[in-house]
Amino acid sequence: MRSEVFTDGLAHLYGVIGWPLHQSLSPLLHNTGFDALDMAALYQRWEVPPEHLADFVASVRLLPIRGCSVTIPHKTRILPFLDAVTPLARRVGAVNTLYWDGERLCGDNTDVAGFLLPLEGENFSGSAALLLGAGGAARAAAAGLQSLPQKRRPAVVYVATPSNTSHLPLAADFGLTPLPWQERHAPEVQLVINATPLGMRGAHEMATPFDVTQCPTPPAKALAYDIVYNPLETRFLQEARAAGWRCLSGREMFYGQADAQFRRWTGHSLPSCVRTVLEAALDQPVQAPKDRIPSTTSFS
Amino acid sequence: MRSEVFTDGLAHLYGVIGWPLHQSLSPLLHNTGFDALDMAALYQRWEVPPEHLADFVASVRLLPIRGCSVTIPHKTRILPFLDAVTPLARRVGAVNTLYWDGERLCGDNTDVAGFLLPLEGENFSGSAALLLGAGGAARAAAAGLQSLPQKRRPAVVYVATPSNTSHLPLAADFGLTPLPWQERHAPEVQLVINATPLGMRGAHEMATPFDVTQCPTPPAKALAYDIVYNPLETRFLQEARAAGWRCLSGREMFYGQADAQFRRWTGHSLPSCVRTVLEAALDQPVQAPKDRIPSTTSFS
Repeated sequence: MRSEVFTDGLAHLYGVIGWPLHQSLSPLLHNTGFDALDMAALYQRWEVPPEHLADFVASVRLLPIRGCSVTIPHKTRILPFLDAVTPLARRVGAVNTLYWDGERLCGDNTDVAGFLLPLEGENFSGSAALLLGAGGAARAAAAGLQSLPQKRRPAVVYVATPSNTSHLPLAADFGLTPLPWQERHAPEVQLVINATPLGMRGAHEMATPFDVTQCPTPPAKALAYDIVYNPLETRFLQEARAAGWRCLSGREMFYGQADAQFRRWTGHSLPSCVRTVLEAALDQPVQAPKDRIPSTTSFS
Repeated sequence: MRSEVFTDGLAHLYGVIGWPLHQSLSPLLHNTGFDALDMAALYQRWEVPPEHLADFVASVRLLPIRGCSVTIPHKTRILPFLDAVTPLARRVGAVNTLYWDGERLCGDNTDVAGFLLPLEGENFSGSAALLLGAGGAARAAAAGLQSLPQKRRPAVVYVATPSNTSHLPLAADFGLTPLPWQERHAPEVQLVINATPLGMRGAHEMATPFDVTQCPTPPAKALAYDIVYNPLETRFLQEARAAGWRCLSGREMFYGQADAQFRRWTGHSLPSCVRTVLEAALDQPVQAPKDRIPSTTSFS
């Protein structure tokens, strides 16, 4: 019986931290994986307000927390609290994964590999791309685009964000071209990436970062890529698909980054049953927990 | 399947804190109870060094930790970190149970009820008792003896402890008679209570706090009560039994305090299967975890 692996009180804890955190499917993926491999490990969801991030890292060092997924708004702020950061995460400037290397608490970034996975067959040579957002996911996307082979890489990558300020350092770090938010529909772009929380289940579910009808790109040449994975079809993707664009949902990126985390923590890939469970879950609306729904979403 | 209660990542965490902590059967009891009641809860063992007690309490406030058992050396030191303490725990000056009352993190003491349980049929009227130790368990025993009905209460309760100093405030608080450690065998006593860690599985397993052959009490009138429950028969109890004393092991006290904790946390008594599991476990030596065995035991 599965519960017997827990009776000795020595189970390893894992979790996801974010604030707010009412849309995460990470517990389902990782717990299904631990269960299938009969590992004495439990993955939880931990809503950690930014002002308690230092306390949280102290908890990781004190309790048997062997790994952690990191999401908005902590991906960049957590770096100074760690003992080491992988070169990739350092380049992105954002950590989405905590793990232990012996006694050292380390940060890695598995979003880049996850972002690139569904773009394997694409060629953006000679075209422009538009990146919306400036947080950890946007930095992973920028690093991913930068790492594409020269012959497939976009000639120019525009970046815009609702705050109209936080995209400037991102542009400087990765050689992107900053655009004012209100001018994001002006250029002809072959690829539009949503890395903002707009459209995510919750307070901003009905929002969209981009109006495809205002974009001069011929629909047959345009690709909409939404990093949001819940819901699977955001308003952005629904409108793009209706206008004739090709679409990529965040599901593949999400699965890819989770699989890389699981390998980092356990040495195993996520068992194949996990993909089945994820697809079944994404076919259904995921309910927000009723006990704690913040009234605002923070942008980062 | 039991594991399904954990997949959403919202399980409640419980645990026991102590330092060192290589003899606890609490995870077995509480996890068996949660399992039998199909509750989404996990009880862990957390070795918390004294210098990290404040960090630990911050973790309780940050993570979904809904309750905690507290053992040596934290039972007294944890009081200043709590929002409220029950009158009983305040009188004992020691907390063995953390729980939430709404938004307030509270401390209770369930050791007193556990200590008194196996003494229900005993009458110490007109006799003397000897309490060995001065930590949280000793204070619970002192409070328990003090709360016995007048007609069953010992006329005098001696107290002694290996440090020869920490028993003095205990004596003052509960009207006990302090004895130097080296004179503990002198008085004729009907009841000897071991509330030191001497005899506990681990570094002090071969130690005993009391040599019954040096005690002037006629064996037929003497009762040895060891609060240590692992091993079930400590050296103290083995020698007392061989000398013709009646003996009480810490098992009943341990079960009673755990049951009171479980009721505090869940509203349910421990299911009857838990007693069966405890008895089976106490019939076998419990192995210390191999990864972390401190070289010394702290006395409190």
